[in-house]
Amino acid sequence: MNVADELLTGNVLAGGRAIRWLDDGDPRGAQVVSAIFARTGRAHIIGVTGPPGAGKSTLTSALVTEQRRRGRRVGVVAIDPSSPFTGGAILGDRVRMARHSTDPDVFIRSIGTRGQAGGLSRSTHDACLVLDAMGYDVIFVETVGVGQDEIDVAALAHTTIIIGVPGLGDEIQAMKAGLLEVGDVFVINKADREGFDAAYRQFELMLHLRADAAAATDPPWSPPLLRAVAVTGEGIPGVADATDGHAHVLRDTGEFVRRSAKRAVDQTLKLLQAGLTERVIDRADTSILAAVEARSIDPYTAAEHLLRTLQGQQAP
Amino acid sequence: MNVADELLTGNVLAGGRAIRWLDDGDPRGAQVVSAIFARTGRAHIIGVTGPPGAGKSTLTSALVTEQRRRGRRVGVVAIDPSSPFTGGAILGDRVRMARHSTDPDVFIRSIGTRGQAGGLSRSTHDACLVLDAMGYDVIFVETVGVGQDEIDVAALAHTTIIIGVPGLGDEIQAMKAGLLEVGDVFVINKADREGFDAAYRQFELMLHLRADAAAATDPPWSPPLLRAVAVTGEGIPGVADATDGHAHVLRDTGEFVRRSAKRAVDQTLKLLQAGLTERVIDRADTSILAAVEARSIDPYTAAEHLLRTLQGQQAP
Repeated sequence: MNVADELLTGNVLAGGRAIRWLDDGDPRGAQVVSAIFARTGRAHIIGVTGPPGAGKSTLTSALVTEQRRRGRRVGVVAIDPSSPFTGGAILGDRVRMARHSTDPDVFIRSIGTRGQAGGLSRSTHDACLVLDAMGYDVIFVETVGVGQDEIDVAALAHTTIIIGVPGLGDEIQAMKAGLLEVGDVFVINKADREGFDAAYRQFELMLHLRADAAAATDPPWSPPLLRAVAVTGEGIPGVADATDGHAHVLRDTGEFVRRSAKRAVDQTLKLLQAGLTERVIDRADTSILAAVEARSIDPYTAAEHLLRTLQGQQAP
Repeated sequence: MNVADELLTGNVLAGGRAIRWLDDGDPRGAQVVSAIFARTGRAHIIGVTGPPGAGKSTLTSALVTEQRRRGRRVGVVAIDPSSPFTGGAILGDRVRMARHSTDPDVFIRSIGTRGQAGGLSRSTHDACLVLDAMGYDVIFVETVGVGQDEIDVAALAHTTIIIGVPGLGDEIQAMKAGLLEVGDVFVINKADREGFDAAYRQFELMLHLRADAAAATDPPWSPPLLRAVAVTGEGIPGVADATDGHAHVLRDTGEFVRRSAKRAVDQTLKLLQAGLTERVIDRADTSILAAVEARSIDPYTAAEHLLRTLQGQQAP
């Protein structure tokens, strides 16, 4: 049996291998996706994001436990910052997740960021397809920060959880603003800490402003603001209720399928863009690039010229 | 006089207009870059990055003061997270920077993130070109987080300052690992806070690991680890000495010019990629994308097919 067939039966070794191939850009990964794609689109993909120190891993781990309690098979895609030093491993997080390692119905995989713009969301999308085909009902995608990568990752989830935490400064709250639009469920974690009330009010205000700005969302969904203490499990069932409820609304309105379809098209365009860029760079007139280096042609003029040259190569 | 000529004389209104055009993708922006490009490549571009709460704005503001004391004209490009709610404005930071607002030799501009992969570093590069052409000697680029965007921005600076801070957890330190490779000067800010010694040791260890991994850097530069209390100005002259020293080494070895040249080529390829993608999406066979939506063709096969179709359109 080949890797695609194996992973469709739920074989974790085959699943892990496919994800590694895809993360590495190994062409066998693309073959696996071709073979499994028709069997995907069923899993509920939940993005978990928030600033450093908000307790994303602990909350994700608690939600995994809760979803298992609800009888679901659970996958986790953890996005590690690539680093030659840590190898992307965050030891503390690994330990927190370790309690699921003996559960055959939980599958956790880390993927690297590869340092390539757009590469992260491409790899994450592929990993979600593999876990989806393996039959996991719920897939958590846990990001590391609050930048553009996180917004891209949120775009590929059905449901995005944004985690806040008491006691972080103005800068954090402002950063979160960029993520506010993509949040479906908001959770203030570490709610037993000093500063909870202030953080709650800040989030409430932001959500209120958002409600004004986007009165008619599709589907109609009013993002709840919840409190949790992930280390003790307090508030976790409420968070799971909220994500389950959101999935329910998405399925009822047909939005679940539409989001999956949109993701697949986005992925196609990203792959197309990557492939094109590779070919163009292979063929680009290097004398123009040398002129840019020497500052005798500016980047805009050079790019325009290269584009025109490529068009000139095409049949009329 | 046109905007390009005006900004070359240092006119801040013209400079601001050019940056806005470039940030908005207005074609007049590209014309300005074409007109000024030959006059750029002189300014020392310093990236300032670190996790939320590390005090990036305060430290940048203190470094602006110090560079002014050294007789230099200073530009600042602040990257705001785009947001329909805050308009990207971080009020506290604006206030901290306000003390420079009456200094005619300091020019501060915010640019948005536009929510487009690669768009941030493109806009930032353009803004740096404008400030460079306006005659600012040192340009600080202040980012908002520690994600891929920040690594991209670091790639366009001559010198990158990574700020740490006492009392942040494992997750922060791990996140920083992705940025470690691009750091030229490390500063632990808020050094009067509890936890300084632990943070210092953590950074020391990470830098030691890095030194082992990259024994032969080009040019030879051993990144210093400095302490600062930006709000009081403590340690700030030392940070300025370090960035000035780094610029000196870069200029002496010819690396300063090489980095500027590499940035210009990168910018050209990014513009080329954006232009190509736009054209391809305009022409793409939408029936294939519909098949992807219906999950009857997978993204890899569809992208490969679209690439082949485009090649088929080209003359042999």
